[in-house]
Amino acid sequence: MNGAESLVRTMTAAGVDVCFANPGTTEMHLVQALDSVGGVRAVLGLFEGVCSGAADGYARMAGRPAMTLLHLGPGLANGLANLHNAHRARTPVFSVVGDHATWHRGRDAPLETDIESFARPVSKWVHTSTSAQDVAGDTAKAIGAALSAPGGVATLIVPADCAWGDAEGPARPIPGAPPAAVLDDAVEAAARALAGERPAALLLGATALTEVGLRAAGRIAAATGCLLYAETFPARVERGGGLPTPQRLPYFPEEATAALAQASRLVLAGAVEPVAFFGYPGLPSELAPPGMPVETLADPAHDAADALERLADRLGAGADPAPGPPAPSLPPDGPITPTTLSQVIAAGQPEDAIVVDEGLTVSAFYVAASGGAARHTYMALTGGAIGQGPPSATGAAIACPDRPVINLQADGSGMYTAQALWTQARERLDVTTLVCSNRVYGILLEELARAGVQRPGPQSTGTTSLGDPALDWVALATGMGVPASRATTTQELARELDRALAEPGPHVVEMML
Amino acid sequence: MNGAESLVRTMTAAGVDVCFANPGTTEMHLVQALDSVGGVRAVLGLFEGVCSGAADGYARMAGRPAMTLLHLGPGLANGLANLHNAHRARTPVFSVVGDHATWHRGRDAPLETDIESFARPVSKWVHTSTSAQDVAGDTAKAIGAALSAPGGVATLIVPADCAWGDAEGPARPIPGAPPAAVLDDAVEAAARALAGERPAALLLGATALTEVGLRAAGRIAAATGCLLYAETFPARVERGGGLPTPQRLPYFPEEATAALAQASRLVLAGAVEPVAFFGYPGLPSELAPPGMPVETLADPAHDAADALERLADRLGAGADPAPGPPAPSLPPDGPITPTTLSQVIAAGQPEDAIVVDEGLTVSAFYVAASGGAARHTYMALTGGAIGQGPPSATGAAIACPDRPVINLQADGSGMYTAQALWTQARERLDVTTLVCSNRVYGILLEELARAGVQRPGPQSTGTTSLGDPALDWVALATGMGVPASRATTTQELARELDRALAEPGPHVVEMML
Repeated sequence: MNGAESLVRTMTAAGVDVCFANPGTTEMHLVQALDSVGGVRAVLGLFEGVCSGAADGYARMAGRPAMTLLHLGPGLANGLANLHNAHRARTPVFSVVGDHATWHRGRDAPLETDIESFARPVSKWVHTSTSAQDVAGDTAKAIGAALSAPGGVATLIVPADCAWGDAEGPARPIPGAPPAAVLDDAVEAAARALAGERPAALLLGATALTEVGLRAAGRIAAATGCLLYAETFPARVERGGGLPTPQRLPYFPEEATAALAQASRLVLAGAVEPVAFFGYPGLPSELAPPGMPVETLADPAHDAADALERLADRLGAGADPAPGPPAPSLPPDGPITPTTLSQVIAAGQPEDAIVVDEGLTVSAFYVAASGGAARHTYMALTGGAIGQGPPSATGAAIACPDRPVINLQADGSGMYTAQALWTQARERLDVTTLVCSNRVYGILLEELARAGVQRPGPQSTGTTSLGDPALDWVALATGMGVPASRATTTQELARELDRALAEPGPHVVEMML
Repeated sequence: MNGAESLVRTMTAAGVDVCFANPGTTEMHLVQALDSVGGVRAVLGLFEGVCSGAADGYARMAGRPAMTLLHLGPGLANGLANLHNAHRARTPVFSVVGDHATWHRGRDAPLETDIESFARPVSKWVHTSTSAQDVAGDTAKAIGAALSAPGGVATLIVPADCAWGDAEGPARPIPGAPPAAVLDDAVEAAARALAGERPAALLLGATALTEVGLRAAGRIAAATGCLLYAETFPARVERGGGLPTPQRLPYFPEEATAALAQASRLVLAGAVEPVAFFGYPGLPSELAPPGMPVETLADPAHDAADALERLADRLGAGADPAPGPPAPSLPPDGPITPTTLSQVIAAGQPEDAIVVDEGLTVSAFYVAASGGAARHTYMALTGGAIGQGPPSATGAAIACPDRPVINLQADGSGMYTAQALWTQARERLDVTTLVCSNRVYGILLEELARAGVQRPGPQSTGTTSLGDPALDWVALATGMGVPASRATTTQELARELDRALAEPGPHVVEMML
């Protein structure tokens, strides 16, 4: 058994059986080990950002890590943006990066670089194996680290001779540390904070956004009158089908602060103290109004759902009475706008869908429209590194082959990792990609307007407009083997969405805004 | 004047007037400064790897850096692979990365990350501005560092408040340190090494591959009988039109060692001691046969062309007598193979073309076929980070609007940064992309065969085959606004190449191997 085989045997024993790969020469022994050991599904991405984003989407749904297999420093570099998103989502990922043979390093061959320097900012654990005998143990440690609460990216760098050299055998898996239970004192303090005369705000994140956490939060809101908010970009939240519907904390800081200012104090459940996405002149980083008391019931490493249940019981809250928002209905036929497309999707999405939302300027409209939709799982762009949607949808579909996946996708962001469409075609995944074709980086135009620039100059326009030439998403998708169509009215969109969902395999619908 | 304007004024005073950009919120003041100051051409890339690769291709041709403008850590991450290639090519690049406002850092906002850790492995100079007053001086230092021999990537990280805050004014440009002249002793030693009884090998790199350097090398070869080799992946080399044609040092180590073993000793001119691209079991890292004496005339930081001229004079060499290889001719009509497509391109490429070669397994065939082609400039994939071709061709076309650019492009690599086609369409660039559509990662199949795997298993096949579904490059190019056609025979290829070169603007020809 060589080091590569010891890695694959250790990994399968730990329950990791999917590998999103774009290997090169230094990883060929690892690829061969996938063949000789068996038990792992290798999925090729035509760009490493597809692999890392797919691993993120996969683990958000499967609850266990996938392996990514990337080629030295540049291969890892191409995967970093979506590893950043995974890091921010606290998603467990077993990131394996090949390297030159130990004796070939230091010769300054063209692909030599400092892989650890690339990996560190996105990883909770980084290690370079030093011998083939160590690879199995390193693999067990990496997977254990990735799984330990809160989850994260564990990067194992495997020099080629550590893959091809002789190893003793696989290592025993190391289980991840589960999320810690919160102390009774924290429950007590949160109960006091929520019992004040004016209503408090309860901000939910991480495991507070599971079904258990949401139902407990609904009971708490009913009992105390507190306002329920969800973090703006949750890794995963259960929604629809009558579940309590926390409001999304607004994206822009002044709106978020105004929302929180409706409450007397802030209680955090699975969320950290909220900060602005960006700093703006004259606005503070903190979103809670100055002086607002903040109480932490559970941070993201805690079992926030359990904490909320205990809190609800402590408050003597009854069963969750919330009927949830009304079911969405189709808008009358008309032009496609952020509002109407959100209504069409919310009305048309089937039971048990997974919605991967990289709609950016459209996202707030969709979230507002879909609280009463059929029960679904929603995943957001956690780290602001665009190009997360199509890869993450790919991974989610591999994790959940029986659930339809809908990727609400901004066009500018979609161009970052459109190669994921090819993997969806190759793997025959039930992913429907709905492209918001507005042909601008809309968020940047909003930012310019916020900065007082109402008529952007030619360079500002040139770097925010995607209209010349217009991207043709039907041609792009077709070129990667994905059937595609275009919708210019809400009726056409409803029809194309139904058709895409009814047919097996991936589809793209370009929504002309 | 704010910090952003002081940056743009300093940069234009230093002669940097092209910016390859994909900005975000933290870079909006820099984009506005491009409008308010003027004098800079901003070119949008729909993915950061397009921007960094274009800056590499631009500076290889223009001899002065472009600015890249990228969005925080994830934006830089997406550009790293082509910055790695630029770093390996010793290309000057002024890489500007926006960051959160200084007072917003440390709050763990979603996009916060360790940007310097990403930048360091690909940069010769990295700095984060600490105030708006410092930005102009930091800009001058960065551009001076990028230009100093040997060139490289200088990364300046500009926090948003350093862009929007008040600055005093631009800074005086700092010129780059020119390449050092080699000492007379080195010329003397090289002359002795070349004067031995058995012929020596002269390995050319960097400025030895300019017209001046090549003509001097040709004189030296005629006078001494030495063998002329060029490094395998040169940043830039002048070729054709009767210029001396050094042989390309072969890619695989055993072939490179066999080539060098024909000589008695090795003299380096603008090249470093050659090492294997990858380490293989049982093969050494060094390509020179064990015990072969190695003499350095000039390393890449030296003025190697000048050194070669002085060496030729010292050897009393006459004028370069080499007539060069014969002009290539079209093959008879037949199937498209690596050999025949290379013959068609070599015969059809016009005078003064720029050939950007990311043909990978096809490259050796093209280089062998084109030594006698019309005079052209050739640029290779220097760092092994695939996805260099279309972006680099884009940048070269912006640097040299009067010269046709031909991008010989492997299909697997082309999928990494195909977004560059859109920029070519938007900027109406005369780039002809010739895609080698073989629908495999051919180099990996070669590597598997070298490792003794003649019949790869399903996982090995699955991660090296691009055939299911087949990529349709005509549809992909059309989707990004680039006219495209397909060639299945050499006659069709010759016709489509001629047509693409005759029409203004970008074209794609998918060559069906």
